[in-house]
Amino acid sequence: MAKRPLNVGLIGGGGGAFIVQPHQRAIHFDGTRRVTVAALHPDAKIAQSEAEQWDYPIKGYDSYDEMIEQESAKPVGERIDYALIVTPNHVHFDPAIKCVRAGIPVFCEKPLTINLDEAKQLVAAVKENNVPFAVSHTYLGHWTSRFSRFIVTSGLLGDVRWVDSYYLQGWLAERTEDSGNAQAEWRVDPKKSGASLCGGDIGTHALMQLRYVTGLNVQRVQAHLETYVKGRMLDDHFTSYVELSNGGKGMVRASQIAIGHKNDLGIEVNGTKGTLSWRQEFPEEVKIQLPGQPDRTYFRGAVSANDGFLGDLPEDLMAEPNVPAGHPEAFHDAFARLHRCFEQDVRLYNDGKPFDCDGNLYANIDDGYTGMAFIEAAVKSSQDGNVWVDM
Amino acid sequence: MAKRPLNVGLIGGGGGAFIVQPHQRAIHFDGTRRVTVAALHPDAKIAQSEAEQWDYPIKGYDSYDEMIEQESAKPVGERIDYALIVTPNHVHFDPAIKCVRAGIPVFCEKPLTINLDEAKQLVAAVKENNVPFAVSHTYLGHWTSRFSRFIVTSGLLGDVRWVDSYYLQGWLAERTEDSGNAQAEWRVDPKKSGASLCGGDIGTHALMQLRYVTGLNVQRVQAHLETYVKGRMLDDHFTSYVELSNGGKGMVRASQIAIGHKNDLGIEVNGTKGTLSWRQEFPEEVKIQLPGQPDRTYFRGAVSANDGFLGDLPEDLMAEPNVPAGHPEAFHDAFARLHRCFEQDVRLYNDGKPFDCDGNLYANIDDGYTGMAFIEAAVKSSQDGNVWVDM
Amino acid sequence: MAKRPLNVGLIGGGGGAFIVQPHQRAIHFDGTRRVTVAALHPDAKIAQSEAEQWDYPIKGYDSYDEMIEQESAKPVGERIDYALIVTPNHVHFDPAIKCVRAGIPVFCEKPLTINLDEAKQLVAAVKENNVPFAVSHTYLGHWTSRFSRFIVTSGLLGDVRWVDSYYLQGWLAERTEDSGNAQAEWRVDPKKSGASLCGGDIGTHALMQLRYVTGLNVQRVQAHLETYVKGRMLDDHFTSYVELSNGGKGMVRASQIAIGHKNDLGIEVNGTKGTLSWRQEFPEEVKIQLPGQPDRTYFRGAVSANDGFLGDLPEDLMAEPNVPAGHPEAFHDAFARLHRCFEQDVRLYNDGKPFDCDGNLYANIDDGYTGMAFIEAAVKSSQDGNVWVDM
Amino acid sequence: MAKRPLNVGLIGGGGGAFIVQPHQRAIHFDGTRRVTVAALHPDAKIAQSEAEQWDYPIKGYDSYDEMIEQESAKPVGERIDYALIVTPNHVHFDPAIKCVRAGIPVFCEKPLTINLDEAKQLVAAVKENNVPFAVSHTYLGHWTSRFSRFIVTSGLLGDVRWVDSYYLQGWLAERTEDSGNAQAEWRVDPKKSGASLCGGDIGTHALMQLRYVTGLNVQRVQAHLETYVKGRMLDDHFTSYVELSNGGKGMVRASQIAIGHKNDLGIEVNGTKGTLSWRQEFPEEVKIQLPGQPDRTYFRGAVSANDGFLGDLPEDLMAEPNVPAGHPEAFHDAFARLHRCFEQDVRLYNDGKPFDCDGNLYANIDDGYTGMAFIEAAVKSSQDGNVWVDM
Repeated sequence: MAKRPLNVGLIGGGGGAFIVQPHQRAIHFDGTRRVTVAALHPDAKIAQSEAEQWDYPIKGYDSYDEMIEQESAKPVGERIDYALIVTPNHVHFDPAIKCVRAGIPVFCEKPLTINLDEAKQLVAAVKENNVPFAVSHTYLGHWTSRFSRFIVTSGLLGDVRWVDSYYLQGWLAERTEDSGNAQAEWRVDPKKSGASLCGGDIGTHALMQLRYVTGLNVQRVQAHLETYVKGRMLDDHFTSYVELSNGGKGMVRASQIAIGHKNDLGIEVNGTKGTLSWRQEFPEEVKIQLPGQPDRTYFRGAVSANDGFLGDLPEDLMAEPNVPAGHPEAFHDAFARLHRCFEQDVRLYNDGKPFDCDGNLYANIDDGYTGMAFIEAAVKSSQDGNVWVDM
Repeated sequence: MAKRPLNVGLIGGGGGAFIVQPHQRAIHFDGTRRVTVAALHPDAKIAQSEAEQWDYPIKGYDSYDEMIEQESAKPVGERIDYALIVTPNHVHFDPAIKCVRAGIPVFCEKPLTINLDEAKQLVAAVKENNVPFAVSHTYLGHWTSRFSRFIVTSGLLGDVRWVDSYYLQGWLAERTEDSGNAQAEWRVDPKKSGASLCGGDIGTHALMQLRYVTGLNVQRVQAHLETYVKGRMLDDHFTSYVELSNGGKGMVRASQIAIGHKNDLGIEVNGTKGTLSWRQEFPEEVKIQLPGQPDRTYFRGAVSANDGFLGDLPEDLMAEPNVPAGHPEAFHDAFARLHRCFEQDVRLYNDGKPFDCDGNLYANIDDGYTGMAFIEAAVKSSQDGNVWVDM
Repeated sequence: MAKRPLNVGLIGGGGGAFIVQPHQRAIHFDGTRRVTVAALHPDAKIAQSEAEQWDYPIKGYDSYDEMIEQESAKPVGERIDYALIVTPNHVHFDPAIKCVRAGIPVFCEKPLTINLDEAKQLVAAVKENNVPFAVSHTYLGHWTSRFSRFIVTSGLLGDVRWVDSYYLQGWLAERTEDSGNAQAEWRVDPKKSGASLCGGDIGTHALMQLRYVTGLNVQRVQAHLETYVKGRMLDDHFTSYVELSNGGKGMVRASQIAIGHKNDLGIEVNGTKGTLSWRQEFPEEVKIQLPGQPDRTYFRGAVSANDGFLGDLPEDLMAEPNVPAGHPEAFHDAFARLHRCFEQDVRLYNDGKPFDCDGNLYANIDDGYTGMAFIEAAVKSSQDGNVWVDM
Repeated sequence: MAKRPLNVGLIGGGGGAFIVQPHQRAIHFDGTRRVTVAALHPDAKIAQSEAEQWDYPIKGYDSYDEMIEQESAKPVGERIDYALIVTPNHVHFDPAIKCVRAGIPVFCEKPLTINLDEAKQLVAAVKENNVPFAVSHTYLGHWTSRFSRFIVTSGLLGDVRWVDSYYLQGWLAERTEDSGNAQAEWRVDPKKSGASLCGGDIGTHALMQLRYVTGLNVQRVQAHLETYVKGRMLDDHFTSYVELSNGGKGMVRASQIAIGHKNDLGIEVNGTKGTLSWRQEFPEEVKIQLPGQPDRTYFRGAVSANDGFLGDLPEDLMAEPNVPAGHPEAFHDAFARLHRCFEQDVRLYNDGKPFDCDGNLYANIDDGYTGMAFIEAAVKSSQDGNVWVDM
């Protein structure tokens, strides 16, 4: 029997927000999830008016408090199956912890919260209430991210010596925040964005990619947060030298003043036996380099399990529904894969069964917490003269 | 007020068909369209059983005849707003002409029909019944295809001298049809596929890309259809030299034995003032080359209207809803854009208003017909000793 | 004991000619060859005056007739060891056949002669006089060309089905010949250039690359010679469909109106087991694609002999003196390798020993003849309505 | 009148040394310089025997002392015009200072000396004796390096904010020094190599590229020198965060354990108005990125002076003898350009005229000194816990 599509409730997303758009496409992508309700704006009037004008019929709530209260009172099947939180950073914590306490699974934009203290409380609440919780580290949703994780963590490249994980953009090279760009306005405001702009906004993606692909953690960090654009209170350029849990080293770096770089997230891992490299803007390819061998470029959809180097690929990696090689997957496909995987855990949760939420298929609450801890350590390092700080 | 989502009915798509998957994602992409009914298989039992097991709830019909009959009897709002035809080539014509005669808009996979005679009848029916009709030339749905069309047709590169439009694959380099690959099995069968395998299946995409980007037609063709894999009855490699309606020349070529090429559709246009090139596998980029100038690479989402070369870009091109540069769009985004544009015409049709269906935003019935005429001319040229044949 | 450097005499090269420059660098590259004399210009006065102003001391001759007469009268060690002919096409034959008859080895620019009749006479003279003779097909001098030839001819990619060999330029897209460009002026003149401009000048390079890499010959050709720039008497765009000696097919194509293409010679070979591709502008790389395998990119200098795919590479291929991978070789390196290999044959000739001149390391007189025969057949095909013509 | 070719004397280069090969090709490249004498080895017998077996006739000296003594006693025209020092690092200082004191111009491999103290003495000697002195920073010899320097220093990209200059290799990822590789053996020995392996050998190239392209100096450095391969006494991985003389920041980084990287020197400069990037392995291209504009890729040989962005290019940059675009220049061309430029200064010196040696066309003694000072500061920073160290 076909399954009932899951109901998703939006928290935030009004006022021309960008990130709610790809999320909606990802939610609808498979036909098995749909947005049904929304609390789009802190102003109840705007929230209702925008809900009425939405591209398709949704029920508008005056506020997320109202939404959480009313939805959690309904039985499964009628209520929302999960909430998507796409508010600015400083409004992640409150709706998230309320959903969690109400037993509503949460898919939350990153960074998790605005400071580490909030993050700690949220972790505790999630553990206590045992609710599926996803943090929106989009790029884990690429098939090639999973493939990279398999290659590195299964030891095919030997021990990890050095990792360069970076996320470069150029859109804040000028005073974009003065040009009426809503995305820029709140991001440069410490009260809404947190202690770090560039590090928090995109450096955390680079950290997550490093941790996901290598399975390693960062133990110490030495960081430089630079502010190039005058009058800005937060960093727009972020560089950190890190020590990994296996004794390896690496860099987690990000920029928002690197003109010409669009959304240039990438990673290179140098192991004792070989190198892996990947870039988000060309998400169909993974390059592997081995001594005395030609460069190998793997393409999603064209990877066979009997390849001499890879050994047997895990079945779930091969079976992941997709399109053949050369019909490129991209940003929305990655988003959709995250929601698709989260859907599985939500369905188990609805059925009262154990669910994974273990960080293998999407970032979980612990990943969200680690991102916050990293930023706190990096900010401290930079403020104290670029010294080493333990995480 | 939010608009009612359109209802789409599937004709074909059962039995593990590939192409129905991206279409469904594209239909659901925006939340404004949804699949509600389906005639999935010629065997009524299988059709019903697959409908029951579908990923999400749909109403299954025993046959497309039943579907067309019952749906066309319902009022707008309850009935399907359009049918999607994703059957093998030889089962395009019958459901398509029946839908058209029943006043149901059609989104049909290509090639339009199995021969030119069917195509002619279908064109006549569409004109007579004045129903929106789309042919699934996916790659027109890329923003960069539209952008390329704007650049070439507005004369920025001068007169078109030479066009090389190609579509290279390698998946039929061996006897794939003997390995249980359902996609390959029917495609190599002239009764199901038509007079040309490689030319009909993918050469028509290359032709369409040439016609869309340049706004020119093919007037004469000299073709070579080769069959490299023994025992095959149709071409697996296709090359044609063509004369264009402005006096320019070009090639439309395709291969399914070019090992290593995945889905390598691309086009290069050499004008008197400059060159444009584009490749489907890297669909975010368009390269422009001008004498005495550096190569220019434009990225979707990063194109400004006050660029010195482009002049003023049309507003609808700039306004097309998308994600910022570096968050790559790809295959599903292109599919979705086609359905999104078709949705506009279907809504106008539902309201009894004039609709466009003019080939500017997606391929229409005339484009489908032209593809059939091209293949017929190319087959004749090849059979007669690679002579010139008028179209 | 260190060997005496060989003496080279230039025939042509004055008046700001381009091609004499890379030849000189290639001659001097290894320290084992040097230019000592020259007949730079048909006008004796200019010839002498330019020789006096040459970048380094050389003896100037009034004419190549004088040079051939006087040099051939000297003993080996004092006379020139070989002549380099870098005159316009219509002045290749006369000095070449005179050198050959005088027993002076010749390194001749391509195309070999201005028509097939001259080419036949020259072939006969070379065979009769048994003198080393090289034709300047520069791009065979790339290590990667040799490597490609090894891979294809040793059957690693199975039987050759299809070859696309192309050479695209854009520098004649306008009436360059009217802008004082000496290179363009004589090339567009049938009396100096021969029956084909684009085909003869660069199409022959594409043909040679096809023949060298695959070891196959062209047996039949169907060609289209186009003239896009008004007032020009010869083709500036060249496309041919060819039948190969093993039954495979291919294209040899060239353009001089493809704006943006600089010197874009490239080849792709589709075999029954895999694909090889190479481009002259990135001459350090060869890409190999095999079914079910990642794309493999080999880099000159980083190829090991114990690679699982290649088997044992020939020692002379591995031993060829070069620089490590990543210290790129390019145009002058290719030129130098041709002269270096020719030097070996000239030294054997000087010692009265058998020499190879067999086309394995540089193009020989037979290769030069084949190029002329190809152009003649292609011109005939195009003039007769693009019909098939046997070679 | 043609000029007398300059005579060059080799110091070092025997025993299968690598770097002497490209230097010889570069010296001979133009026909205006030639190697005439050599002190190839510290063992006089080997020195003489190798000289006898050299590829072409040269006079062998027992030692460089003998060579300097005898050559400096000869008149200009008979003696060597300059010495090329290609010994291991610890044997740079002694022959260099002796040549300088004897009035013989020196072209010296980098790093300049084995420690800063030697470097200081050498600088003093060069200034005192006013002799042309070049340090072999090969990559400044690329036309694209000069072009990059013009673009950045002329302010076309605004103020420099951030520079990432890197040089990545993988050849020391294993214990290459135990495999009989002579290049590796001496480099890992602190007595022969100096205080830093990776930083000294290739990090200095990255520093030089940064300084040359931006015209800026490094004022402070915070460095991490890592040793990944067990048993090695020196760094095989080098990362430094630097403060520039204009207040900008950057990284100078290098690796010899990054498997797959061949000779991956590259630089990216982010200015307030735009970005420039360049990579040594693709030395024909420079990419420029400006806000709201397509990416621009400039190719050597295809740059026009009336380009809208560049303004008027300096004549000497345009006039530099070269081959047309698409006939790629590479490693040997860069080497040759350095020797060609040095030749100009040597000829002026021979004529008793003022010469430039100002670092605009090749690295001079001050550049060599700065490299040593940088390495000393970086080593100190790393040893003291990765603290900031002033230069």
